[in-house]
Amino acid sequence: MAAQSRIRAGEIAVAMPPATDAGLVFIGRIHTPWTSRTDAPRQGRPDGPVCRIEVFEPWVAALDGLECYPRVEVLYWLHMSRRDLVRQSPRDDGATRGTFALRSPVRPNPIGTAIIELVRIDGAMLLVRGLDCLDGTPLLDLKPDRGGFTPLAPPRTGDSQSGTHG
Amino acid sequence: MAAQSRIRAGEIAVAMPPATDAGLVFIGRIHTPWTSRTDAPRQGRPDGPVCRIEVFEPWVAALDGLECYPRVEVLYWLHMSRRDLVRQSPRDDGATRGTFALRSPVRPNPIGTAIIELVRIDGAMLLVRGLDCLDGTPLLDLKPDRGGFTPLAPPRTGDSQSGTHG
Repeated sequence: MAAQSRIRAGEIAVAMPPATDAGLVFIGRIHTPWTSRTDAPRQGRPDGPVCRIEVFEPWVAALDGLECYPRVEVLYWLHMSRRDLVRQSPRDDGATRGTFALRSPVRPNPIGTAIIELVRIDGAMLLVRGLDCLDGTPLLDLKPDRGGFTPLAPPRTGDSQSGTHG
Repeated sequence: MAAQSRIRAGEIAVAMPPATDAGLVFIGRIHTPWTSRTDAPRQGRPDGPVCRIEVFEPWVAALDGLECYPRVEVLYWLHMSRRDLVRQSPRDDGATRGTFALRSPVRPNPIGTAIIELVRIDGAMLLVRGLDCLDGTPLLDLKPDRGGFTPLAPPRTGDSQSGTHG
């Protein structure tokens, strides 16, 4: 179990506070060729293999319009990661850096982000390139990449559900 | 309370499943000039005002090394957002689009992402430009922007805590 994975020389774990400030719902599952971190690429590439992102009900209706965006931001839950390290040693050589200075999956809230190339949407299934996560990774969110995104709405009227972020 | 904000013409809400698949810990708080969505910019700008990101203990030690990166990815919890809409009407004109085709804060897992310009780190406080979120927004994660990031570690040895994502 990854949550008990060993601590390398120089790494520092902290007493992890209870992770109860907010709750997540897994909205789908990511299917990739990689079943262990040994196989997975270090970073996703736009010319990597086509992977599949499956969206669960009741969220499939929320995909409408996403097919217009060639690049999509994907958020997912790094479900195999321990969460309590504040210093990590990527090379396992005793040299450590702070967790927030790394894109390691080990972090207090193990949320991965990727910008993927959207190949096609078939019903509840997205075909994409550019992922590097493990097969079975839980999906958290999909949104148009901010680079190619122009906000549609006029100036806000004060309703808190207006607007965009980032 | 934003969670009860009204549904606009054409918008579709679903029965929200319990959000108990994973739990988050708020690791800090974001301080901005904006106290309502009426005031906040629609998108953060690199020439926007300097905002402050406060990191809570025990996570301050995890900042070490982040000062080397001029651009940082910030993840935060959009705590004022309802979560149950699958179709939304950004213009409130009856025309709707799927939630995943929008960067609206209303989404099943209301996690915001932004790429910010790091001005300076003072202890537990980051000074940054490029945010658009409300004052008091809970912080979830900080990581080097993938654009300026070169993985440090050699090929993996099979330990699941190795590697990077995205």
